[in-house]
Amino acid sequence: MGRNPALLLVLFSLLVGLAVADWNILKQRGWSNGLNLKISLKNYCESWRINVELNNIREFDVVPDECVDYIGKYMTSSQYQVDSERALEQCTLYLSSSFAWAGDGKDAWIFDIDDTLLSTVPYYKQHHFGGDKLNLSSLEGWLKQCKAPALEHTLNLYNEIKGRGLKIFLISSRREHLREATVDNLLKVGYSGWTELILRVPEDGCQEVQKYKAEKRKQLIDKGYRIWGIVADQWSSLKGLPTAKRTFKLPNSLYYVA
Amino acid sequence: MGRNPALLLVLFSLLVGLAVADWNILKQRGWSNGLNLKISLKNYCESWRINVELNNIREFDVVPDECVDYIGKYMTSSQYQVDSERALEQCTLYLSSSFAWAGDGKDAWIFDIDDTLLSTVPYYKQHHFGGDKLNLSSLEGWLKQCKAPALEHTLNLYNEIKGRGLKIFLISSRREHLREATVDNLLKVGYSGWTELILRVPEDGCQEVQKYKAEKRKQLIDKGYRIWGIVADQWSSLKGLPTAKRTFKLPNSLYYVA
Repeated sequence: MGRNPALLLVLFSLLVGLAVADWNILKQRGWSNGLNLKISLKNYCESWRINVELNNIREFDVVPDECVDYIGKYMTSSQYQVDSERALEQCTLYLSSSFAWAGDGKDAWIFDIDDTLLSTVPYYKQHHFGGDKLNLSSLEGWLKQCKAPALEHTLNLYNEIKGRGLKIFLISSRREHLREATVDNLLKVGYSGWTELILRVPEDGCQEVQKYKAEKRKQLIDKGYRIWGIVADQWSSLKGLPTAKRTFKLPNSLYYVA
Repeated sequence: MGRNPALLLVLFSLLVGLAVADWNILKQRGWSNGLNLKISLKNYCESWRINVELNNIREFDVVPDECVDYIGKYMTSSQYQVDSERALEQCTLYLSSSFAWAGDGKDAWIFDIDDTLLSTVPYYKQHHFGGDKLNLSSLEGWLKQCKAPALEHTLNLYNEIKGRGLKIFLISSRREHLREATVDNLLKVGYSGWTELILRVPEDGCQEVQKYKAEKRKQLIDKGYRIWGIVADQWSSLKGLPTAKRTFKLPNSLYYVA
């Protein structure tokens, strides 16, 4: 020991190197589970998100300011993609299960449009990821540009359902004056062959979306349709009576439609 | 350069040290966002969990084997605590909102028991976190030991609701022969003063839990009770008609009750 100053220097340098290693570990941990502040905000925002999905948190106008980054990150993440894909995979499993269509042209399926068939995430990306109060004319201006991309996995499911011979109904809370833009956008990204596109006319305008959508389902049932499923990103598209035999909820914590 | 072999050794050692640093970073990243396999498994298991909570994934007998670690980690994490607390906070907000009780002794609130008032997480911790098929006699044996701890935040809400003068009904899918153990356990951890504890008798035994619980709610409504809310961890405790004015779903991805 101590017989060679070079050896001491080597040992010292190794210690410096290991200190660098520790510092890097700490820095890493700072972004995952080391710093209390980071943990709390992540916990807080994740609990906000999960409780929106559980339909415990309702009627929010905006994403809480401190969670805008977190929600924006999730809604543009591969996790969001995987979560959505998994929900749609459950539709496929359900469709493959044993029940048989009557084949009388009365078997129906309902899709919502925004953030179910078409993504509005690019719009919200430019508008503080739900952190700003909705400006309807700004959103409708964007929708009119027909630039909303398809949710790829929903497009696959849509085509599968069409291929099985079910009638597809699109029930959206978009307003009637957006009909042409909506059709253009849907066709542009690959959707076609729906039986009816139902949009809100002024008479529907004042009521809650949940009531409006349930009413439209009732009209379909009154016409003899059997609604096998609904795919939507808002609980208001799925709840209320009459409903479908099964419903499928896609994740979306950017906004709340009552 | 190269004039001093000791300096070369120092530089070499520094490089070794930095290599250790990099390796540690990689190891860290391996558990967060570096290795594809790890990412995929995390994505996969998180998407399984969220789709259970969204009620898209139903009727599962066991937690998928590859996700047992992930689900176990979540169900024992502070995130699970925070998520649950957030759900219950929404009950408090709802209770504080403007409506007034009639004060005629007919205002009611319903709680589920397992993983709502009492935690079975310690049991599942010993049984592969939902990765093993349910062994009812083993679970009931554990329940009889009355060792289930309270979910602290639910206990607070329970007492708040009791304090507001609402009648509390506990509707559980536990079987009647567990009555004494259930009462003991509830009292032991601080719950008291409920109006009725409703357990499954043999006649209820064969039907689905969702139907059984809806039937019990119907009986309460027929007796003149107004059910203001339900807190539960399973969709089968919340869905089906008649229901409450509002329902609150706690997270739980350990098992599925139909």
